[in-house]
Amino acid sequence: MELKGITREWDSLKKDAAARAASAAPYVKEGKIVDAKDAVALLEAVIKPGDKVNIEGNNQKQADFLAKTLCQVDPGKVHDLHMVQSVLTLPEHLDVFEKGIAKKLDMSFSGPQAGRIAEFLKEGKLELGAIHTYLELYGRYFVDLTPRVALIAATKADRHGNLFTGFSTEDTPAIVEATKFRQGIVIAQVNEIVDELPRVDIPGDWVDYVIQSPKPFYIEPLFTRDPALITDAQVLKGMMAIKGIYGEYGIKSLNHGIGFDTAAIELLLPTYGEELGLKGKICTNFILNPHPSMIPAIESGWVESIHCFGGELGMDEYVAARSDIFFVGPDGSMRSNRAFSQTAGHYAIDMFIGGTLQIDPYGNSSTATANRVAGFGGAPNMGCDPKGRRHSSEAWLKCGEEYGVKEAMWGPVHRGKRLVVQLAETFREKLAPGFVEELDAFALAKNANLPIEPVMIYGDDLTHIITEEGIAYLHKCRNMEERTAAIRGIAGFTEVGMKADPKETLRLRDLGVIKTADDLGIDMSRANRSMLAAKNVHDLVVWSKGLYNPPAKFRNW
Amino acid sequence: MELKGITREWDSLKKDAAARAASAAPYVKEGKIVDAKDAVALLEAVIKPGDKVNIEGNNQKQADFLAKTLCQVDPGKVHDLHMVQSVLTLPEHLDVFEKGIAKKLDMSFSGPQAGRIAEFLKEGKLELGAIHTYLELYGRYFVDLTPRVALIAATKADRHGNLFTGFSTEDTPAIVEATKFRQGIVIAQVNEIVDELPRVDIPGDWVDYVIQSPKPFYIEPLFTRDPALITDAQVLKGMMAIKGIYGEYGIKSLNHGIGFDTAAIELLLPTYGEELGLKGKICTNFILNPHPSMIPAIESGWVESIHCFGGELGMDEYVAARSDIFFVGPDGSMRSNRAFSQTAGHYAIDMFIGGTLQIDPYGNSSTATANRVAGFGGAPNMGCDPKGRRHSSEAWLKCGEEYGVKEAMWGPVHRGKRLVVQLAETFREKLAPGFVEELDAFALAKNANLPIEPVMIYGDDLTHIITEEGIAYLHKCRNMEERTAAIRGIAGFTEVGMKADPKETLRLRDLGVIKTADDLGIDMSRANRSMLAAKNVHDLVVWSKGLYNPPAKFRNW
Repeated sequence: MELKGITREWDSLKKDAAARAASAAPYVKEGKIVDAKDAVALLEAVIKPGDKVNIEGNNQKQADFLAKTLCQVDPGKVHDLHMVQSVLTLPEHLDVFEKGIAKKLDMSFSGPQAGRIAEFLKEGKLELGAIHTYLELYGRYFVDLTPRVALIAATKADRHGNLFTGFSTEDTPAIVEATKFRQGIVIAQVNEIVDELPRVDIPGDWVDYVIQSPKPFYIEPLFTRDPALITDAQVLKGMMAIKGIYGEYGIKSLNHGIGFDTAAIELLLPTYGEELGLKGKICTNFILNPHPSMIPAIESGWVESIHCFGGELGMDEYVAARSDIFFVGPDGSMRSNRAFSQTAGHYAIDMFIGGTLQIDPYGNSSTATANRVAGFGGAPNMGCDPKGRRHSSEAWLKCGEEYGVKEAMWGPVHRGKRLVVQLAETFREKLAPGFVEELDAFALAKNANLPIEPVMIYGDDLTHIITEEGIAYLHKCRNMEERTAAIRGIAGFTEVGMKADPKETLRLRDLGVIKTADDLGIDMSRANRSMLAAKNVHDLVVWSKGLYNPPAKFRNW
Repeated sequence: MELKGITREWDSLKKDAAARAASAAPYVKEGKIVDAKDAVALLEAVIKPGDKVNIEGNNQKQADFLAKTLCQVDPGKVHDLHMVQSVLTLPEHLDVFEKGIAKKLDMSFSGPQAGRIAEFLKEGKLELGAIHTYLELYGRYFVDLTPRVALIAATKADRHGNLFTGFSTEDTPAIVEATKFRQGIVIAQVNEIVDELPRVDIPGDWVDYVIQSPKPFYIEPLFTRDPALITDAQVLKGMMAIKGIYGEYGIKSLNHGIGFDTAAIELLLPTYGEELGLKGKICTNFILNPHPSMIPAIESGWVESIHCFGGELGMDEYVAARSDIFFVGPDGSMRSNRAFSQTAGHYAIDMFIGGTLQIDPYGNSSTATANRVAGFGGAPNMGCDPKGRRHSSEAWLKCGEEYGVKEAMWGPVHRGKRLVVQLAETFREKLAPGFVEELDAFALAKNANLPIEPVMIYGDDLTHIITEEGIAYLHKCRNMEERTAAIRGIAGFTEVGMKADPKETLRLRDLGVIKTADDLGIDMSRANRSMLAAKNVHDLVVWSKGLYNPPAKFRNW
């Protein structure tokens, strides 16, 4: 045998990590502790030009001190970084590009920084790798986007580097595992360094440095919706959803997106849902952040389990006191975990339901606008038909049975289909139409030079749209023409709806592809706020028996 | 506000766990250690009738001592268990049903026990929940299939219950996190109890009891293929795959299924792949167990990274010495993790390629046979188009661009498509045909009363089939008729192939939907074993510079 193996080092990453650790050694005090005042020097010692760097930023928990610190490094020493991180929320996440410290970006969601990303792209200050769903990005951490250095956030640490992430575990395990086991460097900012942790969430062996940050990490009450702001139109759509979808299919396991539409549904379960006799038959198992608007349904005994992506401000005491429902550790506090919650949200639930900004006549929906590169977080992962699913449920089988192109696409095999539901308004605030002939995503793709239009949910994955006009059961359609007609039929007076052919709409109503509130037997006169189990935040506090502690901005009593 | 909340306990699971711990207290020695001789008593103390119980059994690592122990409990005390576990490999996994200890089963893969499951189903000894892919089952651990008691396996433990799982971490983190944070009980069998672990993989806070088992846990060399058994036909298919798919699409990130077909490809990279100038252009990032047949490609500098589901017997020293390629911990040994590898395999790679037993004229493929309930492990999760994917790559975009029904299904949106490739032989051993008019999965669904046929890969997910006759580029087909004709065109003298219309086959060759070895410019006379970079296991050992230590049954020199 002629042996052609090459001669090279096979542990260069390990040696490089050791060299970086040697440069950082002067800043390390007891155990793995580094002083906040030495944070800039630490980053300059362990980060090299061109490194892939992750700053933990997820829906809520932000490694904000380390983000600020990275902005203060000398761009002469640290530059051309490739940021691989799920969420860009803080100004500092973009400042590193302005300062020439970072160059390339791979991410999932950018919220408030979306406009600046688009601007930087145009100005050539930032090179965009791709926009991902959360789980997809975690996957790439183990393939071709492994961070060389991870800057993460935890609640507490001990001096050995063991971390307590508890209620806000979020992305931390996925980031740390990928980084540390590929010989990378993990730096944690923590709110507090203690002698003994309530429990260990991340073993100290996986963490290189711990810094007590001057202030606790930033966290946002992203999932709190004040019931006082729910409209009658949202109540109507909620009633249609419960009767025409939840009840119709027997949806037991599901995820609710963020927003007032799904908050309305949550607050209708103990009233309208109860009246329809659906308790125990729907909504028993959720994948969900701890939404305060879930409290009445939980207290009324609707819910068996909730696994959480992350936490929600003010809900920690309530969640800890409901350990039969939430995933709570031996120490008594919750453990969230976005990777497992998204896995469950992709594969183990029967329905995803959430709001959108725009839907086109093909059923593609998106929250993208022409000049904001925002991403969709976890929505595409939950709002799609997971083709690798092989377990059945009543809801999944029924939706598959109804699929209009099943013979053409599937042949003789029996399969099911995930329910993917979008709640839309024909017109939103400032008369922005909910239905458009072309999604803004097309303009954005052109403006930002993206290879694919940033569509949140694809038309062939979308099974139902609910507007105040009715429900379109899109998956029943037998071709694209029928799908388009069904969408036009519930799109009201938007440009899309105006092209509806009334005869075709009637035909689709006869076929059960479109159902109005009337068709569903819903008494419109009852569709108002009086149906809600809680009318305001104070009601939620009462339902929680005082365990829910809303942030100041939601306390108006 | 009228408050309708119910009055109930909200921490019944926690109280119940405490009561079970109290019953188990007499058997606990120092820290969390229980003697092997008390194992039966421990299980009788902590398991209650009707519990959901997980026995860790995955592709390789088996909690075999605890599986045997569970068979020895008194069925009068412990019965009607609902087993939720990914793999059933050991006889004991089925014995618990025979003995009346367990009743219901949710699983992913059953390999050698597949026939007995089918038998037990018929006899009413076992009630089947569903067959899942691995990642799907882990998702349900966090929704509606959370284990009450988990019986897991680790390499080492300390007396505080901290675990070292190292090379064979596999499913452990997913099982333990779901169980322990829903107030469940975690029992670990370990090969050794030590004072200090090489590193902590699972924190002791998450583990209740540790038992040193009389023998190290059972592990099988599942991914080892002796190059001496690779056939010339497999070499031909491998050359077609490399030229007609890997090179054609520029596949950089991928997974190889188990089997001689993909082992052939691995051994052709340093020879035929090199000759085609593809080094650095294909096969840089893998999701893969540490296949010994990957050694020549790794040593020749083809591979940048490999993340592993689990380990492979004899490969630990080689992997530890290649920390630039594999995910290796600070202690120097690998950490595998099936949950993250499957996540990456679903979302972060461009191609899945593997073998199958049967393909039908619709493109559905399956390894199911009429009287064996076997499941597919991770294949459906990787062998499907992940609809939640939002990042692009050259390969993914090209495959989407070629998709024959894209206008009909997608409308005007640009999208990509995962490559899903099946390697098939028109006739296997004993003349079993690789193409059939109806999959055995249909008979199995009827026999075992399954709601859906256990299809491994669905026709609409499958993009390419390779046989010795040629490659069918199925995704290019514009309708089911064309797809069927393309399949018949490469199905040789099987019943499916005999129905091919030669004119239609020629037309499809003109369209590039079918390509023969000739069409691909492959010199058939070179398609033989001399092309392989290693001809036998000894060659692999030489390539590895003695670091690969094959199990005895593969040492024939």
